[in-house]
Amino acid sequence: MYTIHAKTHNKWDNSLKPIISIKNEDEIEIETKEASDGQITKSSTKEDLKKLDFNLIHPLTGPIEIEDAEPGDALEIEFLNFSDFGWGWTAVIPGFGFLSQDLYTTPIDLAGPELTIWNTEEGYAKAKFGKVNVRIRTFPFPGVIGTALPYPGKWSTIPPRENGGNLDIKHLTTGSKIYLPVFKKGGLLSIGDTHLAQGDGEVCGSAIEAPLKVKIKVKIIKNMNISQPIFYTSKVKEMDYKEYIAYPGISQDLWIATKTAVKGIISILSNFMEPIEAYMLSSAALDLKVSELVDVPNWIVTAYFPLDIIENENIKNEIKELRENI
Amino acid sequence: MYTIHAKTHNKWDNSLKPIISIKNEDEIEIETKEASDGQITKSSTKEDLKKLDFNLIHPLTGPIEIEDAEPGDALEIEFLNFSDFGWGWTAVIPGFGFLSQDLYTTPIDLAGPELTIWNTEEGYAKAKFGKVNVRIRTFPFPGVIGTALPYPGKWSTIPPRENGGNLDIKHLTTGSKIYLPVFKKGGLLSIGDTHLAQGDGEVCGSAIEAPLKVKIKVKIIKNMNISQPIFYTSKVKEMDYKEYIAYPGISQDLWIATKTAVKGIISILSNFMEPIEAYMLSSAALDLKVSELVDVPNWIVTAYFPLDIIENENIKNEIKELRENI
Repeated sequence: MYTIHAKTHNKWDNSLKPIISIKNEDEIEIETKEASDGQITKSSTKEDLKKLDFNLIHPLTGPIEIEDAEPGDALEIEFLNFSDFGWGWTAVIPGFGFLSQDLYTTPIDLAGPELTIWNTEEGYAKAKFGKVNVRIRTFPFPGVIGTALPYPGKWSTIPPRENGGNLDIKHLTTGSKIYLPVFKKGGLLSIGDTHLAQGDGEVCGSAIEAPLKVKIKVKIIKNMNISQPIFYTSKVKEMDYKEYIAYPGISQDLWIATKTAVKGIISILSNFMEPIEAYMLSSAALDLKVSELVDVPNWIVTAYFPLDIIENENIKNEIKELRENI
Repeated sequence: MYTIHAKTHNKWDNSLKPIISIKNEDEIEIETKEASDGQITKSSTKEDLKKLDFNLIHPLTGPIEIEDAEPGDALEIEFLNFSDFGWGWTAVIPGFGFLSQDLYTTPIDLAGPELTIWNTEEGYAKAKFGKVNVRIRTFPFPGVIGTALPYPGKWSTIPPRENGGNLDIKHLTTGSKIYLPVFKKGGLLSIGDTHLAQGDGEVCGSAIEAPLKVKIKVKIIKNMNISQPIFYTSKVKEMDYKEYIAYPGISQDLWIATKTAVKGIISILSNFMEPIEAYMLSSAALDLKVSELVDVPNWIVTAYFPLDIIENENIKNEIKELRENI
């Protein structure tokens, strides 16, 4: 098995030279940096976020060449194992995030900067949000995983694309397999922006961000001719919790419906923590489901907040029974 | 405990006289008709869909008056039990459904009419789609549950609203509790459009539609002052499956992202059944999650198709390994 250290790039650029070459069906362990490229550490404070250099965001380890991978093939990447370094972070960075424009219309302060440092222990990430002790089971995954693009140039790693890229899909954890199109000879796989856990939507703009070691197996599927990522997962059930409070967002627009749903949960949680903490906690743990798309003209996206992650039994019960002023 | 038969109305109209009056914390068993009000039966064919009278859609049993419920209170409705009558239906009705406009742009026939009749047995619904035998565990729920609206007039039951209404949220099954605002004295609760199971989105426009007996307990929460539905559920994990094939839809618009995701799954399933059958099966079983909302400018909605519901092991494995032409 190969091991590679975090030699990184942070643009999609199909002219980059591979840092290693592997064969079909090889396993490889990859060290990743976290999304800020070392600008945020376990001793950082929210003041450090003001100095953040965005040009350094998304250091990706790679590219990794897979011998014999040809355009038209796909790479099957199986996630074998992840290991962390005991910590992670979640931040609200001003101007970034799903509700970043809402500070002009909502009488709650979600602007940031704000930072939470999580500690990990025996497969759980722990942090305190206001009065609430939170404990989330970690299911680590790469926020970014992608092959070289079919066209030349240097391209931002922020948007997900046909090559995969910044998918931020939390089910791409141990036991799942993603299929990515090969556009350039050798595939040229890169991986980074690793997360310990994430809510659907990654609403505040960051998950539980952390450097990791990622062990994968890469297989070439000849002539699969896919045009975008597809994946297999057996983790949905395992990652779900026992109890949820759920807030349906009802609107003629899915974006607005989602805003209503997320704000509904933030509003409930804000009885026990600052709204901006509720925003970060939602980013780490909220589920978002598209409930219905056909009941003209109102669609529904529902936000599901898992009660299981709250360690304080009394607070859990208060939220569960919705007895606070919501 | 009270039992009421299916005496129905199909508009929201807060001047309707209650068909029964119950007290705080009473349990009641309610018979519901299915969404077509008897126009579709277990011996119907797709030809019968051409004669469907839309004016009869959504017969709701009710309204039920809850003594002492006042405006500003909420009703807590706990779902205690559901029983079915051995069958259900899923249909594509021309002009209706999430992809109904796509027949002008997509070279696959999803127009309809098409009809599937399901048989239920020991908590499962079964039907055949092309070559595929499908078996789905039923988690029955009411598509429509709502209180009287705060304003006068006769209002369509198709869109979900501030009173709940046509929420089509599949987690409102046994063990869940929904909180609905009381706008008019007595609350005036109505319930109908019952489903045996449903995928997120209800994409083809119908779930597994079925008449049911619904047993609920109704509690008044004084002065809860909610402005829309909120619910508690412990069913998310229980309703999830072991294995999924998932298709991310990537777009600057959540609606388009969702279309890409749903069409991606229909395309995979169409190797084993007609596309319109894949559309109906998706409507009964697909999960839709909002994966990310922050990676400007591309958002992701991912469609998750559960492999567990496929009884043919060979077909399940072919889909799982994505070896067909997708």
